[in-house]
Amino acid sequence: MSTNEQSTTELLIAAKEASRVLAGSSGEVRAAAIRAIADAVDAGHEEILAANALDVEAGKVSGLDDALIDRLTLTPDRIRGIAEGARAVADLEDPVDEELEGHRLDNGLEIRKVRRPLGVVAVVYEARPNVTIDSAVLCLRSANAAVLRGSSTAAHSNAVLARLASAAITASGLPAAAVTLIGGGRREELQELGTATDLVDLIIPRGGAGLKKALEAVATVPVIYAAAGNCHVYVDAEADLAMAQAIIVNAKVQRPGVCNAAESLLVHESVAAEFLPAALGALAAEGVELRCDGRAAALAGSGVEVVSATDEDFATEFLAPILSIAVVDSADAAIAHIGRFGSGHSEAVVTSDRDVARQFQAEVDAACVYVNASTRFTDGAEFGMGAEIGISTQKLHARGPIGLRELTTFTYLIDGDGQIRG
Amino acid sequence: MSTNEQSTTELLIAAKEASRVLAGSSGEVRAAAIRAIADAVDAGHEEILAANALDVEAGKVSGLDDALIDRLTLTPDRIRGIAEGARAVADLEDPVDEELEGHRLDNGLEIRKVRRPLGVVAVVYEARPNVTIDSAVLCLRSANAAVLRGSSTAAHSNAVLARLASAAITASGLPAAAVTLIGGGRREELQELGTATDLVDLIIPRGGAGLKKALEAVATVPVIYAAAGNCHVYVDAEADLAMAQAIIVNAKVQRPGVCNAAESLLVHESVAAEFLPAALGALAAEGVELRCDGRAAALAGSGVEVVSATDEDFATEFLAPILSIAVVDSADAAIAHIGRFGSGHSEAVVTSDRDVARQFQAEVDAACVYVNASTRFTDGAEFGMGAEIGISTQKLHARGPIGLRELTTFTYLIDGDGQIRG
Repeated sequence: MSTNEQSTTELLIAAKEASRVLAGSSGEVRAAAIRAIADAVDAGHEEILAANALDVEAGKVSGLDDALIDRLTLTPDRIRGIAEGARAVADLEDPVDEELEGHRLDNGLEIRKVRRPLGVVAVVYEARPNVTIDSAVLCLRSANAAVLRGSSTAAHSNAVLARLASAAITASGLPAAAVTLIGGGRREELQELGTATDLVDLIIPRGGAGLKKALEAVATVPVIYAAAGNCHVYVDAEADLAMAQAIIVNAKVQRPGVCNAAESLLVHESVAAEFLPAALGALAAEGVELRCDGRAAALAGSGVEVVSATDEDFATEFLAPILSIAVVDSADAAIAHIGRFGSGHSEAVVTSDRDVARQFQAEVDAACVYVNASTRFTDGAEFGMGAEIGISTQKLHARGPIGLRELTTFTYLIDGDGQIRG
Repeated sequence: MSTNEQSTTELLIAAKEASRVLAGSSGEVRAAAIRAIADAVDAGHEEILAANALDVEAGKVSGLDDALIDRLTLTPDRIRGIAEGARAVADLEDPVDEELEGHRLDNGLEIRKVRRPLGVVAVVYEARPNVTIDSAVLCLRSANAAVLRGSSTAAHSNAVLARLASAAITASGLPAAAVTLIGGGRREELQELGTATDLVDLIIPRGGAGLKKALEAVATVPVIYAAAGNCHVYVDAEADLAMAQAIIVNAKVQRPGVCNAAESLLVHESVAAEFLPAALGALAAEGVELRCDGRAAALAGSGVEVVSATDEDFATEFLAPILSIAVVDSADAAIAHIGRFGSGHSEAVVTSDRDVARQFQAEVDAACVYVNASTRFTDGAEFGMGAEIGISTQKLHARGPIGLRELTTFTYLIDGDGQIRG
């Protein structure tokens, strides 16, 4: 793994050269390098913990909030998890050179559409040091060179993880610049990465709205935003209400800090009086703050404390035990609400009416649209795609989990015996 | 079709609303609307010719060069071609709602990955009025609303084509704003289109480097550049030289003004003395200007006039009967030359050495990589994809011909019976 002594451009040139070697490397060699990284992470756990303690200490001194400190903190368990995650990626099917389509034209030309690596993939992320290894091994598995731009908050942890991975990669016979850490945390690095159109093939930012805005302002390199999820659960007139309650409680509280957690509950007016008192009670019992529109507030049981919801609440991805709640007149109204406030991530309807289910899936414009299930399933591993580098809410190239296949492009390979065009 | 009396934002809002209707429309209705457009173009050919004559006259007065005047000019044959092209698009398979993948998870969730329209697709183009109908019908077939931003040069032609299409679309029961012409030709329109992230899902520019630069500077909406082709033919040491000559002559002269025409010839030194005199003679006889590096110039036959090639010649997409020529030491050197100067469009090797063919296809990073065939085959129709809106040289989402499928995204539809995440 390259270090930070060179300029960003020098590092990117080396990454581009490494990407050419990776594109010609065998899947077995790349998988072996990933397993060597996993072993190195396991063997180096004391060193990793010591470096991480420095970051956590500095973070506390500088006043990071508890959620950020939690994301920054590594434990023996979490380190084992990083190594196990890497081994799982090594076991995934090699996406490179897969033949996607093939046919023979009347003139005898054979056309094959073949999956190929993108080249150099840059991942820009905040706090969480596990992303360093997660991203490195996903890029390595898909034969892309990885350029990792972490945050200064995790600088010590990232540096140790990078050095361990570096030794494993070169020992496996692959170029050191297959994985490059850019650890400066300077704003100009975003500008340099975002405009290096000849050297960087894709940038994936994993972070908040500020990072997205900063990249949008400068990027000419293609970007896939691993973006926010303002996810809804709509309880229809024909819902099984016990199922609906179990789904909204799961979607909200099972892990509130992630992008596929529900942030908003919509309830059809015809079942609101029956559904809301019990459901809001159950959510309140789990410690969820309830921000209700007027109709929902009026139906909350007397023992349940609620606050008034504003439009801003309906537009907010809380990533916390907070839920916005509205009563709607119809499935149409629910779909319109989601069209206005949703972020195109994961949306769910609870209904036993097949027509409503089909309408919801046809008209809600999102990466993942659920009928009678929790939004929490939007996840590469849950979908059987293996690990992912994030969830895309954009429509081009990757939508939903960004897994190995989404880290590839394709080439048309055409074989002839002298064909010319008439 | 909407007209230009409203602001760009108002037009885009109407297009977004129309895109929702289109997303729910049947493929039969959309195909019928396209056939009605074709009939209207046929029936309106006199009106189209009259409007086009005004554009051509104005273009001559303002000093457009012959190539641009040719692109601008419609003839009865070309108008018939536009209508026939539209009918061919109506006959293409409906891409919308195609199930791309489907599986059932252990927990009983059914996951289907289903093709969906993108929403609003904006096409920005220059001179050629045929693009107005070509783009409109491709978007209509894929259930996208089309926003067409033509150039002022073709304003009269585009306006008539738009009005004819408009009547056909509304007569077919689809919303007028399914196809919207923005005909002002103001630079600010690019800015307005390029930053309308909530209203425009994709912009496809069809034009030169200036248009690309202008869009790159402002666009936050995703853009797929239907871009330049600096295409090479490499004649290897083990080439069938008669085949090689036929391929380079075809790739260069069959239609020099298009992006898949060859712009550069590379010849292995071991066959250069045998190959070049005859090949350059044949190219010269077809009126091709030959820009040679020193070694190639020295081998040109005495009867063949050549000029010295600069690096700039090797970097240039001539789109004209001009060819740059270099002698190279090896297949490696040819691949390196293409890596330096190529635009990632279409590259060809002529060889009977299977190892060289495989190496070339593995190491040349381009949308289409040919063995023993002309680069001129890179085309949606030739590839069996039907009509295309251009050829993409970028790696994300669409690479190579941008056909109906490339104008779509997908959604994961997940059906459960109450699953929650543990």
